[in-house]
Amino acid sequence: MMRLGSRVAHMVGSGDDGWGIYYRTRELVAQGIGVTNLTIGEHDVGTDRRILEAMHASALSGQTGYAFGPGKRPLREAIAARVTARTGVPATWENVVITPGGQAALFASHMVLLSAGDTGLYVDPHYATYPGTIRATGAAAVAVPARSEREFQPDAQAIDAAAAESGARTLLLNTPNNPTGVVYARRTLEEIAQVARARDLWVISDEVYDTQVWEGAHLSPRALAGMEERTVVVGSMSKSHAMTGSRLGWIVAPVEVARAVTDLATNTTYGVPAFIQDAALHALEMGPGFEAEVAAPFRRRRDIAQAVLAGQNAVRPIPPAGAMYVMLDIRATGLSGEAFAHRLLEEERIAVMPGESFGQAAAGHVRVATTVADEAFADALGRLAALAGRLAAGRAEAGPAAAGGGGGATA
Amino acid sequence: MMRLGSRVAHMVGSGDDGWGIYYRTRELVAQGIGVTNLTIGEHDVGTDRRILEAMHASALSGQTGYAFGPGKRPLREAIAARVTARTGVPATWENVVITPGGQAALFASHMVLLSAGDTGLYVDPHYATYPGTIRATGAAAVAVPARSEREFQPDAQAIDAAAAESGARTLLLNTPNNPTGVVYARRTLEEIAQVARARDLWVISDEVYDTQVWEGAHLSPRALAGMEERTVVVGSMSKSHAMTGSRLGWIVAPVEVARAVTDLATNTTYGVPAFIQDAALHALEMGPGFEAEVAAPFRRRRDIAQAVLAGQNAVRPIPPAGAMYVMLDIRATGLSGEAFAHRLLEEERIAVMPGESFGQAAAGHVRVATTVADEAFADALGRLAALAGRLAAGRAEAGPAAAGGGGGATA
Repeated sequence: MMRLGSRVAHMVGSGDDGWGIYYRTRELVAQGIGVTNLTIGEHDVGTDRRILEAMHASALSGQTGYAFGPGKRPLREAIAARVTARTGVPATWENVVITPGGQAALFASHMVLLSAGDTGLYVDPHYATYPGTIRATGAAAVAVPARSEREFQPDAQAIDAAAAESGARTLLLNTPNNPTGVVYARRTLEEIAQVARARDLWVISDEVYDTQVWEGAHLSPRALAGMEERTVVVGSMSKSHAMTGSRLGWIVAPVEVARAVTDLATNTTYGVPAFIQDAALHALEMGPGFEAEVAAPFRRRRDIAQAVLAGQNAVRPIPPAGAMYVMLDIRATGLSGEAFAHRLLEEERIAVMPGESFGQAAAGHVRVATTVADEAFADALGRLAALAGRLAAGRAEAGPAAAGGGGGATA
Repeated sequence: MMRLGSRVAHMVGSGDDGWGIYYRTRELVAQGIGVTNLTIGEHDVGTDRRILEAMHASALSGQTGYAFGPGKRPLREAIAARVTARTGVPATWENVVITPGGQAALFASHMVLLSAGDTGLYVDPHYATYPGTIRATGAAAVAVPARSEREFQPDAQAIDAAAAESGARTLLLNTPNNPTGVVYARRTLEEIAQVARARDLWVISDEVYDTQVWEGAHLSPRALAGMEERTVVVGSMSKSHAMTGSRLGWIVAPVEVARAVTDLATNTTYGVPAFIQDAALHALEMGPGFEAEVAAPFRRRRDIAQAVLAGQNAVRPIPPAGAMYVMLDIRATGLSGEAFAHRLLEEERIAVMPGESFGQAAAGHVRVATTVADEAFADALGRLAALAGRLAAGRAEAGPAAAGGGGGATA
């Protein structure tokens, strides 16, 4: 075999990436065994027909040629207006670049802000791709742990220390947060903003869940004093409009960053299909009522989760304030998140993501996506809690030696 | 302004990139001034309605969710079969990864094969994005000139010397070639393959024009002895099926490379819309008759170009054997390609690309895309030749001093 570049090995890193559960689930389903799949952050409905009809009408009207560059101006204007309204800080179409999905926007942001040998920070627990995305640029990726005991609010002091030690140039934030379902508090964000200004950090702010907030309101770092010039907002149609498969995302950033992302796009993606851009504009013009409609099931299931998990102690839910996930601390079972997820899959045919696949700070947790119908969701969560209860009880019976051996991060 | 990473400046490099003509054309059109636009390699028809209907049917059937990973298996199988048939070297679906366009495939190939500090070779004249794509990975991009006097067939000895001097790890080839319209001869490719084996080079083979061959037959480096294991074929639906705006491309490569490209995709693009993949499969299943239909106008206009340019000496066409371009040597006018292109735009309202925007080897040339209706194309080319004739005649009258001062690469 001929030699590949070192980038991919560097990018992928080591450790469990959560695909074990994913592939085992696929295997079971292929065997005809029913599995309640709570692994993937994806709606249980497809893209709305009205959006698909708008896409088709655009394609039939001739929008099938190259659409290179930063994106169509009406769409850029609509996104600028949206971000202006949400942050109170004016953005224009020149601040916006359309990308083929939010992941592409995350990658492009890090590509233009980091040079090889630089360091990018991210908060642990984290969305699975974060460290790989930073490393793909040739930079080092450094995790700053947020603690379960602080409900996974990031720790500004820890970010400050990590920035000082590593000389980091970027900090990747995500609120509402995947995998934790936590919404960062204003105070948390203000403290982080102060660190960003003091350490001259760029903040890359992944806000793809900004329509899914169940407690309080979404707050973008871009809205805070002195942050507009150092913040890149990453957004997407995937979660807010159930358009995951359309791959349409964006950045909103200072104009120089937007220009650099456009230059990079010329050499990497060469634009986003014009008919998808037109569909996205149509979807945005359907207004906040439609967004609330798309978000409603996840709000409802968040309430269901709280009801189902009340009055038991084997599972400790991190209070879910946003996004389509509930993070559960299952350390009372004595198992790692990975071991628990595998037991749950084999014994109850329920698939959830091991916390460890989102970083070491989520060890001993599992992430439950609120992405199946209400009744099936309630039933699955009840059975999950019952399994955890049995495991915790068995552990208590087995005595302190067994209890002392659990709770670790390894399977 | 906060500091960006050094990547974009490194990527963009210096020199004219041809956008001057592009933007000036847009400006004229916006003023209501008619311009015959021969700058862009894009069909004068949109995507076929049958393909768009297949896309819409797929979306309506629910293919609107995440499609991460290497692509849908039926499409990968169809592409594997296609490449197997064209190269005589078996490929399977495991060798294929679907990407959001051919440009994304070029970028991904270089990303997984080059590490920062490596060198990637490419042939000059070259498609505009090539050096930027290589540099975006953090590698150095080294051009190997092909000479107009050799009809822009690449020179294996020059490639060998450049590889030896730079320690290059990759070589980017493109046949049929953009911008020159040249199809690489078997002998040329055999000599290059020998160099690739001797110098342990990966060959990244951009074959997006493989259905547009007017003389002889398309030959992929992958078809040559000992090359399968070191060749990444890049393909796309853009040119063969008039689907430029759909952004659907692929690589066909050794399995290890395909896996690495998939890992990279997870951190960069997160897959290609499933409804576009289904549309592409439908288009491929329309068969070679449809591909010939899409290619036919470019074959016809190639013949028109040869007829229009016969019997004059001010413009020397490089014999066009493939793709949707005719490369013209206009050095007899005493102007650079850029200066001639600007004169042509201002005086005749015809837009063509300066050769210099495709590298120094094409200085004193212009690239004419054969992408407008036959009559308009014949008329424009006639007027181009007439302008060149006047300029060449004026230069001859002005005497040897003026003649000696022309022909250079600068405007």
